[in-house]
Amino acid sequence: MKIAILGGTGDIGEGLALRLAADTPHRVSIGSREAENAENKAEEYTTELESRGLDASVEGAENATAAAAATVVVLAVPPYHVGDTVEAIADELDDGDVLVSPATGMKRDDEGFHYHKPGAGSVTRIAADAAPDGVDVVGAFHNLAADRLANLDADLGIDTLVIGDDEDAKRTVTDIAEGIEGLRALDAGGIANAPEIEALTPLLINVAQHNDGLHDLGIQFT
Amino acid sequence: MKIAILGGTGDIGEGLALRLAADTPHRVSIGSREAENAENKAEEYTTELESRGLDASVEGAENATAAAAATVVVLAVPPYHVGDTVEAIADELDDGDVLVSPATGMKRDDEGFHYHKPGAGSVTRIAADAAPDGVDVVGAFHNLAADRLANLDADLGIDTLVIGDDEDAKRTVTDIAEGIEGLRALDAGGIANAPEIEALTPLLINVAQHNDGLHDLGIQFT
Repeated sequence: MKIAILGGTGDIGEGLALRLAADTPHRVSIGSREAENAENKAEEYTTELESRGLDASVEGAENATAAAAATVVVLAVPPYHVGDTVEAIADELDDGDVLVSPATGMKRDDEGFHYHKPGAGSVTRIAADAAPDGVDVVGAFHNLAADRLANLDADLGIDTLVIGDDEDAKRTVTDIAEGIEGLRALDAGGIANAPEIEALTPLLINVAQHNDGLHDLGIQFT
Repeated sequence: MKIAILGGTGDIGEGLALRLAADTPHRVSIGSREAENAENKAEEYTTELESRGLDASVEGAENATAAAAATVVVLAVPPYHVGDTVEAIADELDDGDVLVSPATGMKRDDEGFHYHKPGAGSVTRIAADAAPDGVDVVGAFHNLAADRLANLDADLGIDTLVIGDDEDAKRTVTDIAEGIEGLRALDAGGIANAPEIEALTPLLINVAQHNDGLHDLGIQFT
């Protein structure tokens, strides 16, 4: 399967691109608003993969080009760019393509990070509202620490939560997620359940900041 | 230390009372609005503890009586009773006593459970706003499945998150929590960080409902 990670030059995009390329048989490309940025980063990631003796590569392209070639498109962009990004690639998406939303809205004050719930209800809902007919949106990969994901020496042994209103699309994303070594994908229901999942990200940052020895935290349901 | 669990006849109260009595040296009492209910349940819990060969007991009393005798008072009551409960026992609290808030607000729709954020910001904040001067409020024990907690045969191996604006009070509650076998207490910062912690409870219920073989779920940060 071809997977495009838009915003793939950013931190969570980097980790997803590296892990998916390293651990799964999928063809991974990253997208950026500037083709050159995407190509340069893709080359970096490929060098990193090859230096580990892995027969894996990552391609780079402008967002719309990357999305056009893919069946699954990950929206690894800041939450306030999710709606615009979906609209910018909408014409490139085919019936049955799946959009994946890993973003969350946060604000920060003296006490720590807090979930900033969008007016639409959740970032996943923003993506769903912007998606063209025939393209389903699935929320996943929210609660992954970017640095830990991007460090292929780091064991994961953590869970990610998958939400969506279409079971087939959810199954597709679950299979992709579980292709990453050490990652278990759990079903957390429909998009209406997104806010509690998106709120895990600021919680994980707060817990990491307040406890010595804990950093790049993940979560396990047990 | 003397710990009173108000609402100790309810499900999360039962689990806390049994575990604290079984695993820690603290003197545990449960409170209820009706003294007789509390006494009957306390007798049940004591019988359960004795049947396991444990030299432990739980006492029962009306809420205010239980609170008066305790240094740490757990508000294991429904979220909409937290403010009233604190007001009802305020005169019985001494300077330095600590209130513990484990409650969370939830609403349910066809998709699952959702965090119902109170106007005050969080249930923990409601308790803090109602607490008399000199009495600190700490949030803890939110993300514990009641049935698993109350079943002394069940291993925990999970985390609870502790929030509060006074470090000494937080330390007191952390020590109590870590006295329960298999429970690790992590610092999640100040009361301003409560909403994301309280939102874990509906999330855990949703995940348990959507995944075969997972029930009475807890969470581990790793």
